[in-house]
Amino acid sequence: MSLDALHIKALGGVVGADNIYTDKAHLIAYSYDATRTRYEPDCVIFPRNEKDVSEILHYCNEKRLVIIPRGAGSGFTGGSLGVKGGIILAFEKHMNKILEIDMDNMVAVVQPGVINMDLQKAAEAKGLFYPPDPASEEHSTIGGNVSENAGGMRAAKYGITKDYVMALRAVLPSGEIIRAGKRTIKDVAGYNIAGILIASEGTLAVITEITVKLISKPKFIKTAFGVFPSVKHAMSAVYKTFAEGITPVAMEFLDNLSIKAVEQRFHKGLPVDAGAILITDADAGIPALLDEQMKKIDEVFRANGCSEFKIAKDESEAKDLWFARRNCSQSITIYGSKKLNEDVTVPRSKLPELLDAIDEISKKYGVLIPCFGHTGDGNVHTNVMVDGSDEKQIEIGHKAIEEIFKAAIKLGGTLSGEHGIGISKAPFMRLAFTSSEMNLFRSIKRAFDPNNILNPYKMGLD
Amino acid sequence: MSLDALHIKALGGVVGADNIYTDKAHLIAYSYDATRTRYEPDCVIFPRNEKDVSEILHYCNEKRLVIIPRGAGSGFTGGSLGVKGGIILAFEKHMNKILEIDMDNMVAVVQPGVINMDLQKAAEAKGLFYPPDPASEEHSTIGGNVSENAGGMRAAKYGITKDYVMALRAVLPSGEIIRAGKRTIKDVAGYNIAGILIASEGTLAVITEITVKLISKPKFIKTAFGVFPSVKHAMSAVYKTFAEGITPVAMEFLDNLSIKAVEQRFHKGLPVDAGAILITDADAGIPALLDEQMKKIDEVFRANGCSEFKIAKDESEAKDLWFARRNCSQSITIYGSKKLNEDVTVPRSKLPELLDAIDEISKKYGVLIPCFGHTGDGNVHTNVMVDGSDEKQIEIGHKAIEEIFKAAIKLGGTLSGEHGIGISKAPFMRLAFTSSEMNLFRSIKRAFDPNNILNPYKMGLD
Repeated sequence: MSLDALHIKALGGVVGADNIYTDKAHLIAYSYDATRTRYEPDCVIFPRNEKDVSEILHYCNEKRLVIIPRGAGSGFTGGSLGVKGGIILAFEKHMNKILEIDMDNMVAVVQPGVINMDLQKAAEAKGLFYPPDPASEEHSTIGGNVSENAGGMRAAKYGITKDYVMALRAVLPSGEIIRAGKRTIKDVAGYNIAGILIASEGTLAVITEITVKLISKPKFIKTAFGVFPSVKHAMSAVYKTFAEGITPVAMEFLDNLSIKAVEQRFHKGLPVDAGAILITDADAGIPALLDEQMKKIDEVFRANGCSEFKIAKDESEAKDLWFARRNCSQSITIYGSKKLNEDVTVPRSKLPELLDAIDEISKKYGVLIPCFGHTGDGNVHTNVMVDGSDEKQIEIGHKAIEEIFKAAIKLGGTLSGEHGIGISKAPFMRLAFTSSEMNLFRSIKRAFDPNNILNPYKMGLD
Repeated sequence: MSLDALHIKALGGVVGADNIYTDKAHLIAYSYDATRTRYEPDCVIFPRNEKDVSEILHYCNEKRLVIIPRGAGSGFTGGSLGVKGGIILAFEKHMNKILEIDMDNMVAVVQPGVINMDLQKAAEAKGLFYPPDPASEEHSTIGGNVSENAGGMRAAKYGITKDYVMALRAVLPSGEIIRAGKRTIKDVAGYNIAGILIASEGTLAVITEITVKLISKPKFIKTAFGVFPSVKHAMSAVYKTFAEGITPVAMEFLDNLSIKAVEQRFHKGLPVDAGAILITDADAGIPALLDEQMKKIDEVFRANGCSEFKIAKDESEAKDLWFARRNCSQSITIYGSKKLNEDVTVPRSKLPELLDAIDEISKKYGVLIPCFGHTGDGNVHTNVMVDGSDEKQIEIGHKAIEEIFKAAIKLGGTLSGEHGIGISKAPFMRLAFTSSEMNLFRSIKRAFDPNNILNPYKMGLD
């Protein structure tokens, strides 16, 4: 369904002819995200400012036209795709400025199109630190990060995007501009609108400005890794480290399949016979405290079967250690041409049981499921590997995924640690939520967006 | 308006005759909070469990009866008062258990009626730590803390209640039971219902179970205080300390009026000529890091006019330092029989301007306004002192308060740092929020509570 020329003209009148496109090249460029699923929108608009966003939404609400806000399109669940067409609202062209880094209050104010790494760099240039570091940090935007509540490696110590959002400006589907939250640690006036906009996947309002908390840049950091005989040993070491009162910045794991895959592709001398490895970063304000942390991690690791514990001597050795983790995702494609990747999360102490369950699911369906990820916060990236040309195997893979979700939920975990729901996980919402809970979500959606013009067909709401 | 006997009978059928009261003694006991305003409810019910809450709400929703959830009634804004009667749902009798302290995942699961200090003590007994410490910690409940998003002294370093809530169970006005959030660091499935229930003052749902994050207990702690020639000097020292990358646990201030009042009552040898004093706590994992912090605080303080900086030698000296701060509230009553106390909050760097504005307001209206509070997080308790028997002076006091709110909002601050809105601050919501924002609040209220049975007439929504 293409968009009426009258609408294009009216919207072009708002943003100017050079900020609205309906040509094939643009429609294709904005048709996909990291899921590789493609849905062509009807139109792509680049708003110049909040006023444009307000006028566009007001018009679209009157005319019942679908709007899909979009950052970098790096999402893993199709959250920014126009499933049944619609107008893509893209922030990368104009609304991509860091508006302020307020040193006195340690906050940054940014537009939604700012790239995560650009904010990290701008903060670090001033001795400050923006911790959320999704794997997509080089290209994903803060607007997208907020909308999906992006996590990352450092979540174990520093939390996730929601822990840093202090205030938002947003436009409701009606075109009304609202502010939510303040540049203050404490603010309890009115409902926590910023809280509910985070992770709402652009379904409630369009975020136009984001105020985030910055912290002091950690002064000393070290990287270490430990080799374990089994995934179960490694998972016990993870939760026991934290339970001992040590809080590493990150604690990432690779299972045997992941280790082998990285080694096969990059020949880094990884221990291919190990059941699992853990790579961990710790930081501190003074070196003595850092050394103490590393000593304790070593102790807990060894008490849980770790046969080798190694602290990187310098930054280059640390980089080498992280190389393996960062290259898991691309390396494991040796196991199958199609990767059905999900990110389930469980309470840390349930990690051993989760990995056991995944092992059984792998055997039951006869599919390989390499796992790696952010175990420091209970978040495991599970990858069901199948032959992409074999429809039957893909179907089996999806069954395996459904069982992984069920196992995670049974252990008190969640469908999605950091990838959102979008369209990919929408069919599984019924596993995680009761009809009362789904109906409450729908009531909230209606409260913000009575005409359902904002990013519909997402989160299993429709 | 008293409650129909039929309703009493039906509700008594749910909870049993010994858990429902309509006698005068109960109605009076549940008629007030810390505002000292009194509104008698029609009935007081003590639910035994979540099922009782569900059945009560279902019945009340059908019959359109007003329900007011209540913790300890220690609120400062009337949030738990039945303004036009209604049924008080009190959790202190049965739903007051710590259900679990999960050492492995460092979380606690509690019922709403658990007293804050009981949770702190239970956590500390296991080497863990629950940081939120509202002044009411000895009697206020976690349910109330969550509903008002309580703050406290340690917020400067450790944040507030919302930073610790991981998951909630709650009952909707329909009687439906919902779960929100998970015992995991990451969870991005569905709307952030827990986020919007926090600080909603019992107007959206009745919270029946709370899962909070615990952290490791800080090992080493020191207290210090600094003497400043003026409030403005002290306020600069506050924000510059944090901007230097030092994060004290607490940084509390007393202005000259507060110092004099405490000294007059308790003769502690406080510097009565000082413009202000700052009392600060710092903690760390090892003593060297703590000493480094204290050294830096000393430096920043002195660079901002501090004439004396003293670190407490031991716990008893630390207690003495905190004594002054803890006894401000009662001591300042020497300035007037009625205290109109509010808690405004601004970004830390705006503290000097806020205190300047308050000084001008004090002069303009000819009222004394002693100030003290949690300046480490920008939260100032302002106390307009008036003669309680003089209606005209009370009216002037209220005008002064309105101007203080306006000044705080103009500086990017909020009406309420930690006391909520309730009824006391409801008339000022129009100063802080646009009609679009207020209407959004009303839409959200309707999404949860279409019949407006849950704690109505609060937050300026009606």
